[in-house]
Amino acid sequence: MSDRGAPPYCGAVRTIDWGVDGAIVIIDQTALPQELRTLRITEVDDLVGAIRRLAVRGAPALGAAGALGVLLALRQGRAAGWGEAEVARAIDRVRHARPTAVNLAWGVDRVLARLADGEEAVAAEAIAVLEEDVAANRAMGERGADLLVALCGDGADAGGLRLHTHCNAGALACVDWGTALGVVRTLHERGRVARVYADETRPLLQGARLTAWELGRLGIDHRVVVDGAGASIIARGLVDAVVVGADRVAANGDVANKVGTYPLALAAARAGIPFVVAAPESTVDRATSDGTAIEIEDRGDDEVVAYGGVAVAPVGARAVNPAFDVTPADLVTAVVTEARVVRPSRGERLA
Amino acid sequence: MSDRGAPPYCGAVRTIDWGVDGAIVIIDQTALPQELRTLRITEVDDLVGAIRRLAVRGAPALGAAGALGVLLALRQGRAAGWGEAEVARAIDRVRHARPTAVNLAWGVDRVLARLADGEEAVAAEAIAVLEEDVAANRAMGERGADLLVALCGDGADAGGLRLHTHCNAGALACVDWGTALGVVRTLHERGRVARVYADETRPLLQGARLTAWELGRLGIDHRVVVDGAGASIIARGLVDAVVVGADRVAANGDVANKVGTYPLALAAARAGIPFVVAAPESTVDRATSDGTAIEIEDRGDDEVVAYGGVAVAPVGARAVNPAFDVTPADLVTAVVTEARVVRPSRGERLA
Repeated sequence: MSDRGAPPYCGAVRTIDWGVDGAIVIIDQTALPQELRTLRITEVDDLVGAIRRLAVRGAPALGAAGALGVLLALRQGRAAGWGEAEVARAIDRVRHARPTAVNLAWGVDRVLARLADGEEAVAAEAIAVLEEDVAANRAMGERGADLLVALCGDGADAGGLRLHTHCNAGALACVDWGTALGVVRTLHERGRVARVYADETRPLLQGARLTAWELGRLGIDHRVVVDGAGASIIARGLVDAVVVGADRVAANGDVANKVGTYPLALAAARAGIPFVVAAPESTVDRATSDGTAIEIEDRGDDEVVAYGGVAVAPVGARAVNPAFDVTPADLVTAVVTEARVVRPSRGERLA
Repeated sequence: MSDRGAPPYCGAVRTIDWGVDGAIVIIDQTALPQELRTLRITEVDDLVGAIRRLAVRGAPALGAAGALGVLLALRQGRAAGWGEAEVARAIDRVRHARPTAVNLAWGVDRVLARLADGEEAVAAEAIAVLEEDVAANRAMGERGADLLVALCGDGADAGGLRLHTHCNAGALACVDWGTALGVVRTLHERGRVARVYADETRPLLQGARLTAWELGRLGIDHRVVVDGAGASIIARGLVDAVVVGADRVAANGDVANKVGTYPLALAAARAGIPFVVAAPESTVDRATSDGTAIEIEDRGDDEVVAYGGVAVAPVGARAVNPAFDVTPADLVTAVVTEARVVRPSRGERLA
């Protein structure tokens, strides 16, 4: 359980934290929404397993997992009498638990830089990574909430804003608070949210499973919709603004995010409502000039042609299963980070 | 089994037909894609049950079910010694098996008009409804194939056209051949189809279950994609044209179709590729001036928050579940019917 700083998620626990008894404590996201269960992890291989089976997921949360993983390796090594090489191998296993998650390696490397200063310095740096993530999300929330109020006023019915989101960019993707859902949460604290529409987000249903769970715990009125329905919900005038997270933002403002984001941006542009992206500065990829350079991972057939082990498509049916799509900058009303608001649709660049 | 006219679906059976032994024979669509099973229906109440549990579905197929239902009621009544009132009540149960399907009542009424002429006249009229459906789809297929070749040429890679479709507008939605998928099938017979992308079509997965099954039996290369991926597949240049069916076409060319169609139209317009609707003249609603007058049925929470009886969203989560969306006429490159090609995006009207 958390014993520091900002209040933990919805009065329960942070998505990932360092427990007072010297263990990593995570919310097991494979058990949600049926059960809120925490895992207490004291060995490096258990952390690697938790990352691999997506018990902890989301770029910022994986950064924290990498940071805490170094601390865990040091402590486990001390207790077990490991040599330097053994500790290094354990840290390497954490770094490579999911090769595509750059934040994981980023978290490992940042804390590893303090290794020469001893375990206390490592612990302080790992905790700092967590605290900074929460602080960044809080700042992003304030900035995003201010922007949405400026763009939309009090909402079409003056009862608050009706927002639409995709996938899960909430506390469960971070240490706490959330990015896109952190903006929603900040607005909710100000009493300015009427309703949130959450796309279910096939194939892995992070919207139906995780975002709906977070919104329920926050007491925010919400409705789950199938991904195909998002655009027409917007066209029918039921939404004041779209707010999503990002996996990578190119220098020109093109945004890579969970597949299904781009059609919402198209619908928002047609309806004349804002399409807002909330993501930390670490998501801005200055080395990538635009979205055409972003490689789109294809996750294979299985997630699409079967559901919960039951085949939904004919035997042998193949799928194309891109994990992300790219929303062109001209459809992006604003990118909100912890430090700034950039308006790509007006031609503003992030780098 | 079919014993008349055009060859049956993929060498098997028609979606719905009048068997030589005096029974309605349908493909049980609840068993697909796992099993191709036919049901032999000799009693009106079994037909009503089959319609209610979606063993037979799709507007044109329901028109045929209504037509054959009148014939079945007459024959069952004769065998059982029913009076006129009893036959009329049975026919009424068919007409109201699914209240929202206008084609069902249309099929009933068309055949009922011949009741005074005796059972043979009724049988001839019912069979005519089936034959006309197949003939209309064949004509639509030729017209749509000609149009797509004119619009797209041989396709980006000259190996044939890469087409994208949504839901199931195939033989399984009709007596045989199909509307949008009938166009694909005609193009395939001409050797002009490289690949078809089929949206899985949540919540009921008609694309993954039924369209992929049809394409597989036709030997057409295809890939299933989640609904959220359709727009970006188009944006990445993988699709030459979108071809979908319609549930209702307004006089101005606004098109109501399965929810998730509209975002494909947005993406097609942005990518500069054709968005083509294939639907019979009976789908054109001359009394509806534009899409704003089309009521959108909401099918409730259950289809969205659970899958196969397993909850995917938190207990108590609510959904918004519109069955259809409306694609505005300016995004519709063409509406192809058995009789004509209308170009709504050029301002042409259907009525």
